[in-house]
Amino acid sequence: MESQKLIRLFVTASLADGAAVELGQEQTHYLKNVMRLREGEAVALFNGSDGEFRARLESFGKRTARLLVEERLRAQAAEPDLWLVFAPIKRARIDYLIEKATELGVSALVPVITRHTNVERLNLERLRAHAIEAAEQSERLTVPRIDEPRAFDDVLGAWDKSRRIMLCDESGTAPRASVALANQSAAAWAVLIGPEGGFAETELDALRKLPFVSPVSLGPRILRADTAALAGLAVLQALRGEAR
Amino acid sequence: MESQKLIRLFVTASLADGAAVELGQEQTHYLKNVMRLREGEAVALFNGSDGEFRARLESFGKRTARLLVEERLRAQAAEPDLWLVFAPIKRARIDYLIEKATELGVSALVPVITRHTNVERLNLERLRAHAIEAAEQSERLTVPRIDEPRAFDDVLGAWDKSRRIMLCDESGTAPRASVALANQSAAAWAVLIGPEGGFAETELDALRKLPFVSPVSLGPRILRADTAALAGLAVLQALRGEAR
Repeated sequence: MESQKLIRLFVTASLADGAAVELGQEQTHYLKNVMRLREGEAVALFNGSDGEFRARLESFGKRTARLLVEERLRAQAAEPDLWLVFAPIKRARIDYLIEKATELGVSALVPVITRHTNVERLNLERLRAHAIEAAEQSERLTVPRIDEPRAFDDVLGAWDKSRRIMLCDESGTAPRASVALANQSAAAWAVLIGPEGGFAETELDALRKLPFVSPVSLGPRILRADTAALAGLAVLQALRGEAR
Repeated sequence: MESQKLIRLFVTASLADGAAVELGQEQTHYLKNVMRLREGEAVALFNGSDGEFRARLESFGKRTARLLVEERLRAQAAEPDLWLVFAPIKRARIDYLIEKATELGVSALVPVITRHTNVERLNLERLRAHAIEAAEQSERLTVPRIDEPRAFDDVLGAWDKSRRIMLCDESGTAPRASVALANQSAAAWAVLIGPEGGFAETELDALRKLPFVSPVSLGPRILRADTAALAGLAVLQALRGEAR
């Protein structure tokens, strides 16, 4: 870490030169006791819409901290319109998935309950905390949205057809990404991965018939759901996204 | 999991029709007490060189199991010649990295100690166990080699120049993967990632001067070392590797 790099915090307050921002208990604890900052020191704040600002620690209370917003360091910029649609997986793996997907630039995390999904309850608050932390560390200017879990059929039934789906397909019949995505110019994308047990055949059949779905093979090995999600996001970004 | 799918085990014994294989304590425990297999049931065995065979459980001892090898299910096939060269990271993250890199098809995991590497000791036995488990689950026919950690300068000094290095470069000046890798036709590759603190400037300068190094940007965000490794492997496989 370079010494001049500021600690970054996501806040919900509006940000502008001269604004005052009050931090809650957790962020105060983090700055005061974990990072051992003192009054007069600077941090960087972002809120997903106003860009990134330098702010100075004016005072620490017992459970709050007051910051004074100084100059804008970065203007808000366009970010990829990229969803990850995934069936919930077990605890340690889903935490990791949220972190990695946030680093790889997703704008929304969309949990879906498929036929073979075993995990149906999600602690969304914990997942959002992971997404915020990953956004802070990866220098994003936004935090991805995390939806409530919904039935897969409902999500697909209400799908906006202008958002193209890259389906991570392990059947062995799907084309490679460089072929499957070569002539696709959609501006909005979703990477779709099944649960650990895979999609049901009826689900796969339905998906393959949809004109806005591109089945893609990620190679000959069987990937875990979280690996497939990360590989799919990285490959899509490299071939069709911002890293193209 | 389909019901007819056999449990896969990596063994070091030679495999051929009619051969007998003796399992050690851990694999015996796994089959007997975790998976609750009984005598007469079948598993799949592979050893990295003879292909994959169906084998039948002949007898369970207290700490050993005896299997009789039946027919060959898959012939040994060529796999990618792809290394991951990485600076060791903290425990949970390195376990995950080994698992994911194995799933994504690496043939060797090469730990290097760079200027900014904080973790210098590695439990290679634990890492090898993770690689074996990931190989078993991902239906690979090999287990990647895991080297002893060495000084980065020594590894680079002894480098075989026919193996091209994709350097995951977060400086913002490197070209995108689709550009950087477009005209590269090396048969052997390595993905190289720095430690959490990044490469030292002197290390980066040296790397960029080497004719067998392709610096690649994986997008505008700052990725953790493990994320960069997985994204780099997935993108390289999609653009230049077996998923091309």
